Amino acid sequence: MSRAILDGSELRVGDVIPVGSVSFTVEEITDFARRYDPQPFHLDEEAARTSIFGGLCASGFHTLAACFGAQVRAGVLTPCNLGGRGIAGLAWRRPTWPGVEYTLSLEVRSLVPNPARERIEAGIGYVLCDPEGAVVMDATPQHLLRATRGERSTSGGEAPVETAA
Amino acid sequence: MSRAILDGSELRVGDVIPVGSVSFTVEEITDFARRYDPQPFHLDEEAARTSIFGGLCASGFHTLAACFGAQVRAGVLTPCNLGGRGIAGLAWRRPTWPGVEYTLSLEVRSLVPNPARERIEAGIGYVLCDPEGAVVMDATPQHLLRATRGERSTSGGEAPVETAA
Repeated sequence: MSRAILDGSELRVGDVIPVGSVSFTVEEITDFARRYDPQPFHLDEEAARTSIFGGLCASGFHTLAACFGAQVRAGVLTPCNLGGRGIAGLAWRRPTWPGVEYTLSLEVRSLVPNPARERIEAGIGYVLCDPEGAVVMDATPQHLLRATRGERSTSGGEAPVETAA
Repeated sequence: MSRAILDGSELRVGDVIPVGSVSFTVEEITDFARRYDPQPFHLDEEAARTSIFGGLCASGFHTLAACFGAQVRAGVLTPCNLGGRGIAGLAWRRPTWPGVEYTLSLEVRSLVPNPARERIEAGIGYVLCDPEGAVVMDATPQHLLRATRGERSTSGGEAPVETAA
């Protein structure tokens, strides 16, 4: 289903790459929350019922990490990913519930080639949708990708920014 | 050391709130990586040596989650935090190493009051520094805070955005 990117130069702004499904058990939600986000609405069903969420849901940081893990495991960017620079923006639009099968896809949103170092900084959208197709989380981590191929590698300096509208 | 915010209306843009120390063991780093970021440089010391990091370091998502957990455990925003809307931006400036005692502080960067709903959307900077004072991670999660006090709650509509320069 998903496609492995061997070299950053293969990417074009606007590319959409399906990753696969992401889901959360109650145990995973509470285990993550105990370590990294021990707020009542991520730990306890009863307390969550009176929160603005209305039920036990995953920490937003858990949702983000699980999406990243799904991408790594699917091997999409694994062959060329050197590291992360940051996150250009992230929106948690809806709670992430246990027992729901969400669908993750990647969208190439920006590419800043650095031919001198054979690298590209890529803004990659991580878009998580629920079974009805509604966006649950939309994040844009900035990946540093190896890019040893492509016409850009002959240029000397920093190439112009290529960004989605 | 840190201060508990009981109501979002207590915050002012520019406020700095110390949280405390954050550190990572090798076991915590590899455990998080196995679940959420199974890339070689977060799993294996040998593989990490030949990566751009030069040694085993925590996943950036782990660094982010650990900082958030430290804030919740310190109880800074716990009394008034309703949930998270997203992250306005995040930079991983340096790798996070095991066995180093980092220091986390919060900076109030933006406040958008919603008096009609007795809430404030607050952009809170999470700034993690190493023992030399260099910034390792700088993130701005958008918190939704309960704000039942303060002069703003008498106004009817959405108040103007208050943002740090």
